[in-house]
Amino acid sequence: MKSGVTNYKLVLCYDGTDFKGWQYQPKQRTIQGALEDALLKIAGKRIPVFGAGRTDAGVHAEGQVASFKASLSLDNTKLFRALNAILPDDLRVQSIETAPPDFHARRSAVSKIYRYRILNAPRVSPFHLRYVLHVRYPLDLRAMRKAAALFAREADFSAFASNKERHPVRNVTVSRIRKVGNEIVYTIRAEGFLRYMVRTIVGTILEVGKGKIPPEEIEELFRGKKRTLRTPTAAARGLCLVRVFYPRSSRPMTKASSTGLV
Amino acid sequence: MKSGVTNYKLVLCYDGTDFKGWQYQPKQRTIQGALEDALLKIAGKRIPVFGAGRTDAGVHAEGQVASFKASLSLDNTKLFRALNAILPDDLRVQSIETAPPDFHARRSAVSKIYRYRILNAPRVSPFHLRYVLHVRYPLDLRAMRKAAALFAREADFSAFASNKERHPVRNVTVSRIRKVGNEIVYTIRAEGFLRYMVRTIVGTILEVGKGKIPPEEIEELFRGKKRTLRTPTAAARGLCLVRVFYPRSSRPMTKASSTGLV
Repeated sequence: MKSGVTNYKLVLCYDGTDFKGWQYQPKQRTIQGALEDALLKIAGKRIPVFGAGRTDAGVHAEGQVASFKASLSLDNTKLFRALNAILPDDLRVQSIETAPPDFHARRSAVSKIYRYRILNAPRVSPFHLRYVLHVRYPLDLRAMRKAAALFAREADFSAFASNKERHPVRNVTVSRIRKVGNEIVYTIRAEGFLRYMVRTIVGTILEVGKGKIPPEEIEELFRGKKRTLRTPTAAARGLCLVRVFYPRSSRPMTKASSTGLV
Repeated sequence: MKSGVTNYKLVLCYDGTDFKGWQYQPKQRTIQGALEDALLKIAGKRIPVFGAGRTDAGVHAEGQVASFKASLSLDNTKLFRALNAILPDDLRVQSIETAPPDFHARRSAVSKIYRYRILNAPRVSPFHLRYVLHVRYPLDLRAMRKAAALFAREADFSAFASNKERHPVRNVTVSRIRKVGNEIVYTIRAEGFLRYMVRTIVGTILEVGKGKIPPEEIEELFRGKKRTLRTPTAAARGLCLVRVFYPRSSRPMTKASSTGLV
């Protein structure tokens, strides 16, 4: 790293409803695009920003992490204020820290937690509909819990990804369901995820909940190692990237410039 | 009322963010317009719908009440389902009841409760920003409570309305502030309100909170009986029509066809 260049670590939260996902796309409203546009205004040049998870269109984040390298004249507190002043309201920087030179939001991450909210009730209020998947019909919670547990393993997840991938083995350490009021909340933690993996696992657990797939069949799906028509992809709106974990060696070199988002 | 004609009472909730308010406007997305469009599909003709409160653009409702008269072939449960199937997701019918023939959502109402949410914190999360007014600077809660209490009266509210009105006397029975976490929640109840009255009262209470107006000056403003530059109108996003009250005689003739919105 050149002298004078700082490696920044940002924690972000966003309402993904009105974004076309993380990844930059010309003429589309994306998280990466909004961040790079804001940095362009601050730094006078295009600076590439890396995200820990490339969230799909409509997926939310409470604790997405991004990193970028730049040589800026502002201190972290001023950069924090400038970014939040420029960024749209539905994308907020929660904190900015100076990270070690080799820190990279995606490559340094050791694990990520995603949460999926299913509202199992006759109706959904207009105030929640951006953040939950609404399921009207009754769901078999016990079968869903059983199904969820079967995904906590190190395995080839090809049956639960969008495309055939070259390295389809992933290590899921947490996969469980909680009941919170009339919400069924699914939590999954892994080192990394294949594309659409979380939404396909949720889609599969929902099929189990509806009685269309017995939990036992999940073993068979794993063994098949390819996507079938039995495993639909659940809608993006229920999904949220909750937190990204890094090893001790990636700890920030400065205290966070600001936190306390409510 | 013609025989075969039913007088319907609807309880509605909506996220007002993406609506141009209650009142029908050609080519605009309004609550009244959406309801009348939905009824047009169901009844095959335009049916006028009346609302208890003509909420402004951006104002939300948890318990707006609407009424209309129609001769429909559907029973209330089917009408409820049909309306919610046709209406956009951010506008939901909570219940449908058959009301007495003389019931009118606005004229029969004896009082309404509005709530205004002020988030007094350094930052607002993208998940709350549609529903709160965000105030970064510290507010003097004690002075605001004192100011709020001064609005609970029967008086000429011309100083707190948008235009000079012919009948500017209103009877406010509740006007108070609660602190809920880092939110300042203002509640106001009255028989009726002048246009922009709630938002102007909130704007005035906020000026008191900032130290720009001493609470005592509110008496002077009341006596002036006209709008001054000292009383700004608070943003619509923090406001919500919570509930509308009716006298016993307007009680529905049927049990609600459906409730239980979460």
